[in-house]
Amino acid sequence: MYYVGIDLGGTNIKTGIVNKDGKIVAKSSIPTKADRPADEVAFDMSVEVLNLVKSAKISLDEVVGVGVGSPGAINSGAGIVDYSPNLGWYNVPIAELILKRIKKPVKVSNDANVAALGETLFGAGKGYTDTILITLGTGVGGGIVIGGKLFEGNESKGAELGHSVICVNGEPCACGRRGCLEAYASATALIRETKDAMMRDRASKMWDFVGGDIDKVDGRTAFETEKQGDAMAKLVVNNYVLYLSEGLLNICNEFRPQAIMLGGGVCAQGDNLLNRLKKRMKAMHYGYQGTPKVELLIASLGNDAGIIGAAALLM
Amino acid sequence: MYYVGIDLGGTNIKTGIVNKDGKIVAKSSIPTKADRPADEVAFDMSVEVLNLVKSAKISLDEVVGVGVGSPGAINSGAGIVDYSPNLGWYNVPIAELILKRIKKPVKVSNDANVAALGETLFGAGKGYTDTILITLGTGVGGGIVIGGKLFEGNESKGAELGHSVICVNGEPCACGRRGCLEAYASATALIRETKDAMMRDRASKMWDFVGGDIDKVDGRTAFETEKQGDAMAKLVVNNYVLYLSEGLLNICNEFRPQAIMLGGGVCAQGDNLLNRLKKRMKAMHYGYQGTPKVELLIASLGNDAGIIGAAALLM
Repeated sequence: MYYVGIDLGGTNIKTGIVNKDGKIVAKSSIPTKADRPADEVAFDMSVEVLNLVKSAKISLDEVVGVGVGSPGAINSGAGIVDYSPNLGWYNVPIAELILKRIKKPVKVSNDANVAALGETLFGAGKGYTDTILITLGTGVGGGIVIGGKLFEGNESKGAELGHSVICVNGEPCACGRRGCLEAYASATALIRETKDAMMRDRASKMWDFVGGDIDKVDGRTAFETEKQGDAMAKLVVNNYVLYLSEGLLNICNEFRPQAIMLGGGVCAQGDNLLNRLKKRMKAMHYGYQGTPKVELLIASLGNDAGIIGAAALLM
Repeated sequence: MYYVGIDLGGTNIKTGIVNKDGKIVAKSSIPTKADRPADEVAFDMSVEVLNLVKSAKISLDEVVGVGVGSPGAINSGAGIVDYSPNLGWYNVPIAELILKRIKKPVKVSNDANVAALGETLFGAGKGYTDTILITLGTGVGGGIVIGGKLFEGNESKGAELGHSVICVNGEPCACGRRGCLEAYASATALIRETKDAMMRDRASKMWDFVGGDIDKVDGRTAFETEKQGDAMAKLVVNNYVLYLSEGLLNICNEFRPQAIMLGGGVCAQGDNLLNRLKKRMKAMHYGYQGTPKVELLIASLGNDAGIIGAAALLM
């Protein structure tokens, strides 16, 4: 049997046919064109599923159902995208809109949640049943798997792990509060701190790294310049590690998962990031003797996590 | 059928026979005398169960099993008290020690977790399936109920909601980190802040409230003096509400329970505390339109929560 996974994004709709081992056997990508009515997007999604099934020479009878990972606030139980700024959607019954054309079970969840499920069943978290995925990108997303299943909270409005305050009265966050983990551990926050540090130290090698143009700062600037022995870059990275590790320690104490997986652009730093986080977390771990270790891993499915995780909603 | 619940404390062992409706039909209390070997404590617990069953004129055949709520780090699955500073226990297989004398199923969990289960099934949280209990006492404890069952994390080492940092580099916490919720929202923290405020304002009415003796400050001092219009007392209470509400908002965003229940001594402030927390939380709630409300409630079982919750481990 096969499972269709759709990674619905503001720019592209990525569709894949996934087998029971979590391998993508066929995939496609079409533009979302999100500025049109939601029903037209759903129509294209449905057609794309049927086209892909056909081109992969699979019978629709072999397809268990369709899973969709969508940005925004989703009500998974109802199959509705409550609100998605990326798509400009409000109260779209996406499951129903696809179901009426495909006549197969359709399940929907938030994109970060879906990625957490995919990574747990078929990626970095394979073999674990209780895991948490934290994505370090433009924002900080979270997904929680308990007992091999997604935990999403009431009406799927939990698991917003990026919107947990680690500094009361701290940096402003897009959510309206101050001091959220997202305001310290996202790539956006890292870039903000990097630029701020550069303005305080006009002699920093970070200026050379970006060719003197502060607009070229990205999530790599401080990490890469630190390797050249730049003190200000080191300060930026150490602070980033401090705040992120405190956020991860909070997750350890609250959920005590078997493993935490990190995804998103900042994870390209690999072991340089991971080992520093592990060192700090080990020293500050809550608990008495015998407290079980929480593995810290880097997500491994990359851009396919969305498709595979969405398909896994049907497994 | 009946269920025995034991609230094992550092000072007393409180035992109760609980019916299927969560009502205590008989209860007793004996001193723990924790400075003796654990097996002797377990022996007394077993004898007390048998005595109580006999005096309540119940047949042992009508007893489903025995539940124990214990302070410290518990491995519920294994029935072991891994470590309990209050009892001076390390690696005590308490379930096995009781089982060999009672010949009934024995289950063990952390006292805060057990209270959360009791309050959810039979107390303030009745009717909800997904709740969180936060106890505001000497420390800040937490218990998580998901789908009507306790969620405790790997080897029951999660749900340490008091040990989530809300202020990186903040007030020192007993767990070794800085800035934990416990370091701001416990009665201990409230007393610390009250004393600190009094030292900064020798004209504060809080001095009159404690008869000039700063050692008499307790969790009520600032709350009660504020009612007399004392500005410094108001500042202390407002700050306490700020930090606690941030911690509760974090729980909303992470778990999105149906309800959060507050227990512990500070809750004696009732609506004066609850309404201020609600006001702040409502203004800062994460989420888009239609985000489900998280009810904020005061725990209702009082000192019986331990017995009832422990008994509920068998239900």
